[in-house]
Amino acid sequence: VDLNNLIDFIKEADKLKSVERKTFNYNERRYENSGEHSWLLALAVLIFKDYSNENINMIKCLKMAIIHDLVEIDAGDTIIYADDKNKFDNEKKAAERIFSILPDHLKDELFDLWLEFEDKKTPEAAYVRALDRFLPLLSNVVHEGHTWKKHNISPDMVYNKNKSVISAGLQGLWNEADKLLKNCITRGYFPTKSK
Amino acid sequence: VDLNNLIDFIKEADKLKSVERKTFNYNERRYENSGEHSWLLALAVLIFKDYSNENINMIKCLKMAIIHDLVEIDAGDTIIYADDKNKFDNEKKAAERIFSILPDHLKDELFDLWLEFEDKKTPEAAYVRALDRFLPLLSNVVHEGHTWKKHNISPDMVYNKNKSVISAGLQGLWNEADKLLKNCITRGYFPTKSK
Repeated sequence: VDLNNLIDFIKEADKLKSVERKTFNYNERRYENSGEHSWLLALAVLIFKDYSNENINMIKCLKMAIIHDLVEIDAGDTIIYADDKNKFDNEKKAAERIFSILPDHLKDELFDLWLEFEDKKTPEAAYVRALDRFLPLLSNVVHEGHTWKKHNISPDMVYNKNKSVISAGLQGLWNEADKLLKNCITRGYFPTKSK
Repeated sequence: VDLNNLIDFIKEADKLKSVERKTFNYNERRYENSGEHSWLLALAVLIFKDYSNENINMIKCLKMAIIHDLVEIDAGDTIIYADDKNKFDNEKKAAERIFSILPDHLKDELFDLWLEFEDKKTPEAAYVRALDRFLPLLSNVVHEGHTWKKHNISPDMVYNKNKSVISAGLQGLWNEADKLLKNCITRGYFPTKSK
């Protein structure tokens, strides 16, 4: 019985590949989906470990990266610059529905991991969240500010939303992101008349 | 310096999202790419652990799933029913090029993990390989034998290529796959005149 629940969960999780994000893949002007994003995040989690501010439990970080966006199957992808007060409630409802397909011990483990990611407090959550912010920023560096221009995002907004989150997990990576952003400003990758 | 190598590696790895596989996603008739496939495999690795034939080191399995297809950036995706004698050599060359972007200790770790996956001998390799075979089989169950019909694959070929690999990692999952395949034969999901 449990084995069929696992197969059903995999079929349901597959829907994350159809959730479109706001950023292009680095190597093509196709919007990334949240499934392939979750893979690249897990790979980043694996390789950036020497730059984490704090000691981290790698297996917890990998699991967190793999499951962190599953809630978007129901709740959709939201741009970090949006002000959506219902986001957490919608995502929590989604987490409850989706993880409930699993046997109880797995449901509890993955739901708790998702909550830990949302709570932002542990070293693991800080590390994964920092990389989750850096990857789309890098897409805008590569694609000359595509998302920033399209959604009228100013440099101030980018600094406000990213500096504290990235530097809380990987200070050295934030220093690099800061250099990249200054370069983007110089090159005119931001909308000329920003909000 | 190393930090920039890590960023370069992430940009290079992103190309895996443009490598098209032979199977549809479960929930849409769009061919899966190898990036999103690697994510779903990692998720399967995470949840099927109670069904592994042998005790496995979960962190090693997750890392293996995340990196196992990166070689396809250079070598492309090959259908398992193809007889390509140069496959391993081409993929090894690809692994050497791609992992060399990383600092030495990470290069060695990921290259060795990839080799272990290819060698098929450890419990971790057997477990990940079994799931890597089951996922595309499930796509054919869902999509009424799309790949089997398109590439003229007979039930014998499917049993030959999948039974030993899936049962070597998860015997219970093979028992379920066997039931699904018998049902596919009954329903006419295979080409009528197979090789």
